[in-house]
Amino acid sequence: MLRTHKVGSLRAEHIGQTVTLTGWVDRRRDHGGVAFIDLRDASGIAQVVIRDEAVAHPLRSEFVLQITGEVSARPAGNANANLATGDIEVIAHDVVTLNESAPLPFQVSTALADSEVVGEEARLKYRYLDMRRPATAGALRLRAKANQAARRVLDAEDFVEIETPTLTRSTPEGARDFLVPARLAPGSWYALPQSPQLFKQLLMVGGMERYYQIARCYRDEDFRADRQPEFTQLDVEMSFVDQEDVIALGEKILVALWDLIGVKVETPIPRMTYHEAMRLYGSDKPDLRFGNPIVELTEYFADTTFRVFQSEYVGAVVMAGGADQPRRQFDAWQEWAKQRGARGLAYVTFGEDGTLGGPVAKNLTDAERDGLAAATGANPGDAVFFAAGATNESRALLGAARQEIARRTGQIDEDAWAFVWVVDAPLFKPTGEDDDVDLGHSAWTAVHHAFTSPTPEWIDTFESDPGNALAYAYDIVCNGNEIGGGSIRIHRRDVQERVFDVMGIGPEEAQEKFGFLLDAFAFGAPPHGGIAFGWDRIMTLLTGSASIRDVIAFPKSGGGHDPLTNAPAPITAEQRKEAGVDAKPEPAEVE
Amino acid sequence: MLRTHKVGSLRAEHIGQTVTLTGWVDRRRDHGGVAFIDLRDASGIAQVVIRDEAVAHPLRSEFVLQITGEVSARPAGNANANLATGDIEVIAHDVVTLNESAPLPFQVSTALADSEVVGEEARLKYRYLDMRRPATAGALRLRAKANQAARRVLDAEDFVEIETPTLTRSTPEGARDFLVPARLAPGSWYALPQSPQLFKQLLMVGGMERYYQIARCYRDEDFRADRQPEFTQLDVEMSFVDQEDVIALGEKILVALWDLIGVKVETPIPRMTYHEAMRLYGSDKPDLRFGNPIVELTEYFADTTFRVFQSEYVGAVVMAGGADQPRRQFDAWQEWAKQRGARGLAYVTFGEDGTLGGPVAKNLTDAERDGLAAATGANPGDAVFFAAGATNESRALLGAARQEIARRTGQIDEDAWAFVWVVDAPLFKPTGEDDDVDLGHSAWTAVHHAFTSPTPEWIDTFESDPGNALAYAYDIVCNGNEIGGGSIRIHRRDVQERVFDVMGIGPEEAQEKFGFLLDAFAFGAPPHGGIAFGWDRIMTLLTGSASIRDVIAFPKSGGGHDPLTNAPAPITAEQRKEAGVDAKPEPAEVE
Repeated sequence: MLRTHKVGSLRAEHIGQTVTLTGWVDRRRDHGGVAFIDLRDASGIAQVVIRDEAVAHPLRSEFVLQITGEVSARPAGNANANLATGDIEVIAHDVVTLNESAPLPFQVSTALADSEVVGEEARLKYRYLDMRRPATAGALRLRAKANQAARRVLDAEDFVEIETPTLTRSTPEGARDFLVPARLAPGSWYALPQSPQLFKQLLMVGGMERYYQIARCYRDEDFRADRQPEFTQLDVEMSFVDQEDVIALGEKILVALWDLIGVKVETPIPRMTYHEAMRLYGSDKPDLRFGNPIVELTEYFADTTFRVFQSEYVGAVVMAGGADQPRRQFDAWQEWAKQRGARGLAYVTFGEDGTLGGPVAKNLTDAERDGLAAATGANPGDAVFFAAGATNESRALLGAARQEIARRTGQIDEDAWAFVWVVDAPLFKPTGEDDDVDLGHSAWTAVHHAFTSPTPEWIDTFESDPGNALAYAYDIVCNGNEIGGGSIRIHRRDVQERVFDVMGIGPEEAQEKFGFLLDAFAFGAPPHGGIAFGWDRIMTLLTGSASIRDVIAFPKSGGGHDPLTNAPAPITAEQRKEAGVDAKPEPAEVE
Repeated sequence: MLRTHKVGSLRAEHIGQTVTLTGWVDRRRDHGGVAFIDLRDASGIAQVVIRDEAVAHPLRSEFVLQITGEVSARPAGNANANLATGDIEVIAHDVVTLNESAPLPFQVSTALADSEVVGEEARLKYRYLDMRRPATAGALRLRAKANQAARRVLDAEDFVEIETPTLTRSTPEGARDFLVPARLAPGSWYALPQSPQLFKQLLMVGGMERYYQIARCYRDEDFRADRQPEFTQLDVEMSFVDQEDVIALGEKILVALWDLIGVKVETPIPRMTYHEAMRLYGSDKPDLRFGNPIVELTEYFADTTFRVFQSEYVGAVVMAGGADQPRRQFDAWQEWAKQRGARGLAYVTFGEDGTLGGPVAKNLTDAERDGLAAATGANPGDAVFFAAGATNESRALLGAARQEIARRTGQIDEDAWAFVWVVDAPLFKPTGEDDDVDLGHSAWTAVHHAFTSPTPEWIDTFESDPGNALAYAYDIVCNGNEIGGGSIRIHRRDVQERVFDVMGIGPEEAQEKFGFLLDAFAFGAPPHGGIAFGWDRIMTLLTGSASIRDVIAFPKSGGGHDPLTNAPAPITAEQRKEAGVDAKPEPAEVE
């Protein structure tokens, strides 16, 4: 070892000892011909005193030094109570420069790094320097602690950690696959897995009973805010369980994780049905750090003469104290709504004397005006925003408005942690509701995925009413972020085939794509279910980071580009040829 | 939970309790109208008694049952001492069939599985059934324990588990990369990493100091015996260390792993230089479960008149008791040698009376004949095999003969564990010695990889004698298998550039391919080094498996094909188009 002690471990008890330290020059000050170096390693910082000016002269920030010297008490009055090593300093006898450093593109010194705002492109290009800054280093270290904490829970419950393949077949999560040409089978390609879903189910069929993996997953999506092409999930599957068992395990894991930052997660975590979440919060991932639910007014306006409110749905959300916003603020709300694809955001204001203002007010009858405060729960001085139209879209708009109101009015307690399980989601949704690849050829597609079991009440009847059938699924939401989700899976071949059928996947296609799973179900598949936690997202929350990029050692920036290595990069014609990229399975096919 | 107890947990203390169990029908026997079911879950087996013939009638092997019944003492004389639950049986009151099973392609019953030899293609196609067999299930469970054991060692020493990217740039390990088209940058491709080598070095530059990862790695090689396109290594890197530190840590990990199977690995593990290994065992991964080293006879035959032995090198290996092999056996040895690319395998026999036999003997002088027993260490009744020619090839042939002799003559103690560190390997080797992709354009290429440091003695002079310069590297060998290896890395930009230069990688190419690493070295890179353990290979040894495929949940068979999912598979024209497979970086390039 090049050192006898870790820098941060030195204390008064070491005074008088000769030690050898290694580390970086975090900061240097000169005083009366003596250099005071803050030497930093992963364990902390200590002050090194170099009296020889010739030795000290060339040392610059981030030089790597090996210092041999004597641990001494700091002169009276010079102790630094803010530093664990603040009682001592090391009087250097011998200074070896292990490596030099060019001038830095940005500060990494513990003392200075947090005060400097560095652009993300620079942070990613020089990630190896960004990592010396306390925030990034701390995030990566906490992430390792989180892995340990989760594994402690799982190991204690007899889970078996198993690795599943990443060179595999397209899996049916519904996003686009990353593809890998198979050189030894030209024209054939592997897909990188969007999740270990099918493999973990096969492990259950294989009798492993309890599986987990901190698994790398891949989705070739257009870069929406804060997504990465490769991401990590804590993936769990269990046999002979129902929803209660998986939720109980999930809560143990969450308790262990938040304990790392000194937060006690209260269990059982509250639950809410999907329909309740949509009705009250306009979202399947409601932020419950604050209240102010959506108020439905469809009945209230059932006989209205106001054309805008003669709709399938009318709802409202209150902005406490919002009445005194200037007109241009209300105009800005209209813009905000339009950017979300809505036509606008109708509103009324409640004056301190109870009089209604805003453009909508004059369209209402006296009775509608008189009852509105009671119907919405608005107080004098509040504003109320309305949405009217199709139910889902209106609720989504009101849910977003609720969140934005809370943000703007400081209703969100940034230290609060509000967890909720969202259960009883629909099993199917109409196809085409989002950008995802359509798996089947039917009017219906799976809300979670095609392997999610209907709830016990729906298992025999889901085909007759696909729009109302419920999934035996559960998502865990924290502060408005979906941080995990899972379901009880189908384990019977007949049920799986019926679900495929609703999704328009006929027997031949099912056999071609998922034949191995259907075959497996024929050989004694046990009842099973599981959950996957979005590990990057959870780490972002635990560390209070702004982006998942802050909790990934080497993330990609927008477009999947790595500013550090410049991946992806062109390949040579020889690589193309060797990899068999240009082989096509059907020779008749022409470009 | 669908059960109150795990099957294998039942003991006499449970007698009288009503329990609910779940599991598979491992075996069924019928006796006097009563069905005796061996019910199996992951925890073990217990006997279930079903007295109702109508209930028992449909139950077949691998049906999944939920049994509620009373735990009873087995009738006197019927206890089964071989079974942990052998004192009790469960008298079933209620039997629910959770799932049925079609007739099996092969036996999985604990009682029968080990006696049936199943072809590997069937095992892989029905991996979810193979996994119910004790050997495969046990291997996967031991692998999970090994992960735990290694992490316990590393966590206790403040290592930080960090995930590195798998969608990245070509890394320079020297094998072929798997490639992934980047849809958002058509014409550009990611490479799957052959190891996290460069990223772990960047983590050291980043001040993480101690890193580990159980990392998935990828090499697109032609399928040699027992390779997988994706494989796992326990990857470790440390800062401020020398070779002794890394070796000490490696030994702690090995001790913890072998402890899982009750074997105490003696430390310090012996070391041998690369040259000694080649000289005595003709291999850089010598099997030291037995002795019988190669005897060099170049000097002995320095003045020989026998043309075959007028060579750069002459050596021999003794086959104890080999003199009485029939002639056709010796002929078979010639065939064996020819299959390894040699011209043959010269030999002499030593009769019990000391007379020499075999075709070579008559070509030797009397003096050569008289001294041969003493020179080779052969005893009466032994045979001696010779190789003569180029040193490396001759030693390799003798090393292989040594191993084959030991196998055929039962010299290998199958219960022995012989570990050895092989150190002081050459830094460079002449290019073109094997099939690997040539990185540079010089007469020299790296033996380990281009980032391996020369030993301290060679760091200033390696260019002047590349063929003799030593690498600061260490490989760990167990029973003739290389199970891990590592090195102290280069951490100075000037040294790295000089190594690239010897390999024919000029400044421009170096900057283009590894500029990010060279740049990183300019900002205070600490001295660092590490090791990677071949996790699949180690698990194969720990479980006594025949192949690494036995310790991987879902391995590929030959050619990278997965008999279970049928990956890889053709992609659609739309997928091709979307992924940008056909985009070429240079528009002028034509096919």
